[in-house]
Amino acid sequence: MPDYKSCLANPQWGGRFAGGPADIMRDINASIGFDQRLWRQDIRGSLAHAKMLAHVGIISSDDAEAIEDGLNAIAAEIAEGRFEFSAALEDIHMNIEARLSEKIGEAGKRLHTARSRNDQVATDFRLWTRDAIDGLSAQVTSLMRALAQRANEHAATPMPGFTHLQVAQPITFGHHLLTYVEMLARDKGRLEDARARLNECPLGSAALAGTSFPIDREMTARALGFDRPTRNSLDAVSDRDFALEYLSALNLLAMHLSRLAEEIVIWCSAPFQFVTLSDAFTTGSSIMPQKRNPDAAELIRAKIGRISGDYLSLLMVMKGLPLAYAKDSQEDKEPVFDATEAATLSLAAMEGMIRDLKAAPETMRRFAAAGFSTATDLADWLVRALKLPFRTAHHITGQLVSLAERKKVDLAELSLAEMQEVAPEIHEGVYGVLTVESSLASRRSFGGTAPDNVAREAQRWCDILGEE
Amino acid sequence: MPDYKSCLANPQWGGRFAGGPADIMRDINASIGFDQRLWRQDIRGSLAHAKMLAHVGIISSDDAEAIEDGLNAIAAEIAEGRFEFSAALEDIHMNIEARLSEKIGEAGKRLHTARSRNDQVATDFRLWTRDAIDGLSAQVTSLMRALAQRANEHAATPMPGFTHLQVAQPITFGHHLLTYVEMLARDKGRLEDARARLNECPLGSAALAGTSFPIDREMTARALGFDRPTRNSLDAVSDRDFALEYLSALNLLAMHLSRLAEEIVIWCSAPFQFVTLSDAFTTGSSIMPQKRNPDAAELIRAKIGRISGDYLSLLMVMKGLPLAYAKDSQEDKEPVFDATEAATLSLAAMEGMIRDLKAAPETMRRFAAAGFSTATDLADWLVRALKLPFRTAHHITGQLVSLAERKKVDLAELSLAEMQEVAPEIHEGVYGVLTVESSLASRRSFGGTAPDNVAREAQRWCDILGEE
Amino acid sequence: MPDYKSCLANPQWGGRFAGGPADIMRDINASIGFDQRLWRQDIRGSLAHAKMLAHVGIISSDDAEAIEDGLNAIAAEIAEGRFEFSAALEDIHMNIEARLSEKIGEAGKRLHTARSRNDQVATDFRLWTRDAIDGLSAQVTSLMRALAQRANEHAATPMPGFTHLQVAQPITFGHHLLTYVEMLARDKGRLEDARARLNECPLGSAALAGTSFPIDREMTARALGFDRPTRNSLDAVSDRDFALEYLSALNLLAMHLSRLAEEIVIWCSAPFQFVTLSDAFTTGSSIMPQKRNPDAAELIRAKIGRISGDYLSLLMVMKGLPLAYAKDSQEDKEPVFDATEAATLSLAAMEGMIRDLKAAPETMRRFAAAGFSTATDLADWLVRALKLPFRTAHHITGQLVSLAERKKVDLAELSLAEMQEVAPEIHEGVYGVLTVESSLASRRSFGGTAPDNVAREAQRWCDILGEE
Amino acid sequence: MPDYKSCLANPQWGGRFAGGPADIMRDINASIGFDQRLWRQDIRGSLAHAKMLAHVGIISSDDAEAIEDGLNAIAAEIAEGRFEFSAALEDIHMNIEARLSEKIGEAGKRLHTARSRNDQVATDFRLWTRDAIDGLSAQVTSLMRALAQRANEHAATPMPGFTHLQVAQPITFGHHLLTYVEMLARDKGRLEDARARLNECPLGSAALAGTSFPIDREMTARALGFDRPTRNSLDAVSDRDFALEYLSALNLLAMHLSRLAEEIVIWCSAPFQFVTLSDAFTTGSSIMPQKRNPDAAELIRAKIGRISGDYLSLLMVMKGLPLAYAKDSQEDKEPVFDATEAATLSLAAMEGMIRDLKAAPETMRRFAAAGFSTATDLADWLVRALKLPFRTAHHITGQLVSLAERKKVDLAELSLAEMQEVAPEIHEGVYGVLTVESSLASRRSFGGTAPDNVAREAQRWCDILGEE
Repeated sequence: MPDYKSCLANPQWGGRFAGGPADIMRDINASIGFDQRLWRQDIRGSLAHAKMLAHVGIISSDDAEAIEDGLNAIAAEIAEGRFEFSAALEDIHMNIEARLSEKIGEAGKRLHTARSRNDQVATDFRLWTRDAIDGLSAQVTSLMRALAQRANEHAATPMPGFTHLQVAQPITFGHHLLTYVEMLARDKGRLEDARARLNECPLGSAALAGTSFPIDREMTARALGFDRPTRNSLDAVSDRDFALEYLSALNLLAMHLSRLAEEIVIWCSAPFQFVTLSDAFTTGSSIMPQKRNPDAAELIRAKIGRISGDYLSLLMVMKGLPLAYAKDSQEDKEPVFDATEAATLSLAAMEGMIRDLKAAPETMRRFAAAGFSTATDLADWLVRALKLPFRTAHHITGQLVSLAERKKVDLAELSLAEMQEVAPEIHEGVYGVLTVESSLASRRSFGGTAPDNVAREAQRWCDILGEE
Repeated sequence: MPDYKSCLANPQWGGRFAGGPADIMRDINASIGFDQRLWRQDIRGSLAHAKMLAHVGIISSDDAEAIEDGLNAIAAEIAEGRFEFSAALEDIHMNIEARLSEKIGEAGKRLHTARSRNDQVATDFRLWTRDAIDGLSAQVTSLMRALAQRANEHAATPMPGFTHLQVAQPITFGHHLLTYVEMLARDKGRLEDARARLNECPLGSAALAGTSFPIDREMTARALGFDRPTRNSLDAVSDRDFALEYLSALNLLAMHLSRLAEEIVIWCSAPFQFVTLSDAFTTGSSIMPQKRNPDAAELIRAKIGRISGDYLSLLMVMKGLPLAYAKDSQEDKEPVFDATEAATLSLAAMEGMIRDLKAAPETMRRFAAAGFSTATDLADWLVRALKLPFRTAHHITGQLVSLAERKKVDLAELSLAEMQEVAPEIHEGVYGVLTVESSLASRRSFGGTAPDNVAREAQRWCDILGEE
Repeated sequence: MPDYKSCLANPQWGGRFAGGPADIMRDINASIGFDQRLWRQDIRGSLAHAKMLAHVGIISSDDAEAIEDGLNAIAAEIAEGRFEFSAALEDIHMNIEARLSEKIGEAGKRLHTARSRNDQVATDFRLWTRDAIDGLSAQVTSLMRALAQRANEHAATPMPGFTHLQVAQPITFGHHLLTYVEMLARDKGRLEDARARLNECPLGSAALAGTSFPIDREMTARALGFDRPTRNSLDAVSDRDFALEYLSALNLLAMHLSRLAEEIVIWCSAPFQFVTLSDAFTTGSSIMPQKRNPDAAELIRAKIGRISGDYLSLLMVMKGLPLAYAKDSQEDKEPVFDATEAATLSLAAMEGMIRDLKAAPETMRRFAAAGFSTATDLADWLVRALKLPFRTAHHITGQLVSLAERKKVDLAELSLAEMQEVAPEIHEGVYGVLTVESSLASRRSFGGTAPDNVAREAQRWCDILGEE
Repeated sequence: MPDYKSCLANPQWGGRFAGGPADIMRDINASIGFDQRLWRQDIRGSLAHAKMLAHVGIISSDDAEAIEDGLNAIAAEIAEGRFEFSAALEDIHMNIEARLSEKIGEAGKRLHTARSRNDQVATDFRLWTRDAIDGLSAQVTSLMRALAQRANEHAATPMPGFTHLQVAQPITFGHHLLTYVEMLARDKGRLEDARARLNECPLGSAALAGTSFPIDREMTARALGFDRPTRNSLDAVSDRDFALEYLSALNLLAMHLSRLAEEIVIWCSAPFQFVTLSDAFTTGSSIMPQKRNPDAAELIRAKIGRISGDYLSLLMVMKGLPLAYAKDSQEDKEPVFDATEAATLSLAAMEGMIRDLKAAPETMRRFAAAGFSTATDLADWLVRALKLPFRTAHHITGQLVSLAERKKVDLAELSLAEMQEVAPEIHEGVYGVLTVESSLASRRSFGGTAPDNVAREAQRWCDILGEE
């Protein structure tokens, strides 16, 4: 039985490499621990390759059929957890190919004709990344939909518009939520652009120089859903732009989510209480059951850390790497897997919170009216109604705000006489622009916060995004 | 006169803030030191804004004309170095507006109607970034052209294709150079996508909520070359995606250049001597006049550091920033200016080097033939000519290479008898695939390194890229 | 006069490199634009070097004297702005040496004996970095003092202790402020460790291999305040650890300041209003003169962006750089200068804000009492007074909090009968632990928030840090 | 059996969150997947805590004994793989505590008295990080030893000293290897400093405010090998400096290893062939069995990517985080685990390669003599023997090198007459400084490359580092 002493020893750094170089090389070199996630893509690629080889006559139809059956059987084994991955076979590609030869004999040994591990892994990884883009794109759409629906609901709900986290001008909660729809729309655009640029097939570039076999690269490209084959064999095996571009799109997505998450954390705090989240997206403690910690929001806020770390990681790896293939680029997959996982979770949790959150309109309206938040409306009125130059109107407004502050009243509570002492031209009309509601209603410029604008815009997004 | 002692004192951290808070705030707050680079964009924006204000009747035509004349006069003052920038006026926007009022009086005070510094700076900065994209895009095109032309010239020049910096298979120097054309084509695509996404006009979003003036945002957007106005006023003033997306495109561009720069440094080293650079792009020393240090290549290799640092810098700033405007985002401009400068210099220097470099075809051919670089050709021949399964052919080739290595001869120097001892089916035909030239000629698959392929591809790029 | 059109043209990317390679190389290669900041250090280094050369007899005393006089005269020229820096002379070292020869003739040409630009620049840059460390260290101390003094003043001022920005337990404002003293003490320790490791003198390592002259490296090391000469000449000219270690210390410093800055921004917001800042450290607007935007806090919060960007930048540059000197490392200085400037500004502004801020004790106390913040005190009482196992006590407390929440009362407002329904053993003693003040007073464990603890700890820091 | 179609579907993004919020929260919130690596540290911390609780009378000795027995039994279960981790119990702390109560009943429920998960996790993670530092420190020492031993062996082996990867001056291979010993010595120093600063015990800080129980923090600190308890309870639970400082030390370590790895890759390339690695640290291919790809070196070169990504990741997380605990900081562990793993592997593989590599002295000497590498020796001789000013000597040397280059001879092959045409004072003595060996022997300045220096220095390191 272990005693106190044994807990002091940390076997992690002891004896692990007792086997010497062999153990070290296995540990640093093997990728099967993480690249087994590519199994679906590897099998898809091999199926397409084998069909093409048969089509152009490099292998026989019988061999191609045997390969297809064998690969499908292996896919079943993996899906059902019956496949034994071997570290000695290093990576997913060798694991599958070795098993294939084991199952179908000589035909299996013909599969690798006219390709190399270099173009194979490049193809697999592009396929995986493309799948990831498609998955995340759908999630982004779904989050946009949730935001647009909530914005529709709150198109006219006043809230304070902040600059510097100070109350600046009234806006509506719907308008605020739609800001994130805009951000996410750009994120989606970036994912789509990355997908379009990624969507070329490296297969057939072989080790780095192309091949002397009469392969049909158009055929494999088409079969795998690529738009075309890549145009330069060296580029095809050494390029990891697609992974980096994908990760950089995730950086901005994660940045947007971190901003919304930060706002949710602040909105949930006792002094704000603009929104509440249900138990589903908060954690309490057995001792303070009333407490609702916005853990999910905090974790989303944090995820930009690992996602940008993943990006930097791969960018650093690629810096100054001579052509064509170098083993350094084996470090490409884990950051992509990790960032994808983080983004998937963040989007799911954020959508959950957006659908879950309950706004407190009275609280938000109260702060929207505070701090002379309609001062700009007053200045604009002076320009519009009295034809004052803007800078002059600005100056007069400043004096009126000072006056109101000294008297501890709102702008609307200043008497006309008091106002006229500052600027004699002011007339009764001024009182029409000093409330939160009149301020909101007046901001009808394109993109402005007027409730009608917001409702129309929210509906427009709902229409674009469609039903779930 | 200062003596030795005085050199020990560092006045940097003494007395600088003697004036107290006022000095500190001026130093941390003022942006005129760097944002004066936006003067052209600020004036363009104001010209468009004034025209629109007059068009919809918010200001008079006379005022608009006075503003136009005044702004053009100011543009001349700045262009000719006669403008006095004032730190007290904080930023480029206030410097120009204050000077305008000084020059044209009351009309100048009407210019800022229906806009705010928040939408103004967002507009200016987008315009600047768009100009930067256009400038760099042209430079990328120019570098692609230089590479394609050199590739055309070297379409058939053999060089070793490396994996792990070990000789793997023969390729041509032209094929290698075209790899970078592919990379740069993606960089250009990313710049274009960033430009398209950026090209919406924030002007008219005002502080954050839009405005009550009947402005025509379509008109200003069009006048400034934007595709449309932004759709959400909060988003418009708080978004810095365009800067980050632009910087992320520069990251990959800089990464590509770092790879080529690294190769040039290695190719110039004494043991390689694959290329030489002229004095124009190297530095020597008075003591070793024959030495040619590839300083320009090293500096390009290093630039990814500052460019990715600039990107990270802004991403970190934007993390978790609540809406709408926060002063944090004043930190957006310097990284963009710095990265643009670094990319501009790197592209210019790289194009210069590519046009300048002199290849050493004999040296490159010698290494292309070394290390049994045609082993794959032999294996492929065994598959093609003898119908062996690929893995079997692979195995036999390995045995032949071992035999040649033991005998210290090349593969082509093994006698047929020696080969047949390993695999009796081998016949005379094998000798047709063992030279560098036959290997190159055989790689005719799409994207492969066969000189005909490369020449066609280089010409294709030259046609696309056109004359200088 | 420029018209609207001319504003569209951006001369930045046109014509700049009209002079061809020469212009490009000058622009990418020259460092005098930024390394002139090293002039003091360069002159100090040369003075020490010349003295040593004379001491060991490599140059004559007369020459040494002429050099000393000449360098001191140059120092005066630079200090007084009378020195003409020349881009053709590339860097600060050549600018000064060339001027020296101009002034004193042949003796000036002897100065560079037994050294090289490689060890010279390494020495200058270490001296500069050491000065920067000393300057920042003093600023950190000064900020710690300000915090400790304010903590002393607020040792007993209650405020809510947050977890997840939710009210968790009462603490004192002084305790909160002392947290930052602890962080800064670590920052100072890291700066000191970096200084100690940096403090070895590269001078005399020459280009990379040492020198055949009988130099006395101990003497120059001592004269420049270094602890010893570096032990390996290759390491001495290629090492930039000192810059990176310094920057990594700044990263954590900036991170700490970003946390405090974020808190200040939140504390200043309308719903919190825990503190107010004076006009000195906020900006208003002419239109809302009552508004106080915490611009300085936001800018400090943002500075971690550029500082960590600077760090990453240099780390990326150094990645994979072969020995010994490579031009890449010319990219070392700008990040260090930039980060130093940002840290200097941030520390000055933060100290200003800490001395300036006015706390609102009533507001803070009100929130400190909210949300059943003494629930833990109740649970601890159940353990202490009733000997219940902690987890059991925890569970009972949860039930009591639920009860209070349902009744919309505070814990202290539950009657004894109500409490006993949940746990019959509870007696009158319980009411002694349910107020903010009793909770605070009870946290007397070492490092806890009891006002006595906090006062003692604040005083301890004041004693350590001494008078200004 | 799956068919081609099924391979297209990626179940990763489908149905995973079918259970709704509950599934999402479990996935984003649970840490047991990674923090189970803290089990040893968690048990050590609890053992020390329980002993202290009994010592000061908060729990009985019997309870303490039961707890100790229970925890030791759990340690055995985990070590032997018999422990069932439960995701419902979220983290390692709750998993162990729940199991303890299951095993020993009520006593188990008393363990958590006077502590909280916040100080518990801070303590566990510090212990883990300290263990990691100790493990890596030992590995660094071991690598230094290997380098010093090889340096001793090659103290006099000439090799070219490069600047800009151009041959500059002769050095010895031993001198080159010792450069890395210097770098690693600094790395070790940084790890030690980080350890010293880390070595304070957070236990007893409770949730954030300290506790009202009369605990003895000195006792637990001592029992866990800490130098003292932390001084501020808020700081103790929110601080992650120790992790960041540790990671920043790893950044520089990884940077150093990337430089050596890059050199090994270049040295192994066909044109260089300065060293060869055995099969143990290279990979071949079945087709080119003679090829030795330096995969291990490439992977080490790449590891700086993930390590610096891990660092950035955590720094980004901590930016702007308000006190005290926020869930964001749950993202602290994975980067530390990942970077530790990468550093452990890199050090083991690098040591293996250093011990394994076989130098090619003839090749290295050949390049050491190339490129007029003794030009500086000639210039120094002109200064020393002819008393010329250094800059004049420099100029003359340049002319002699040019002459030799034109004649295609080495400097030593110029006749005295030829030399005297350039500088009449030159005499026979000059030929004594023009060989690689004389150059090396002359560089006797402290830290220089003279073989005697290098041998002495290598021996000094061997003595310091001792036997394995």
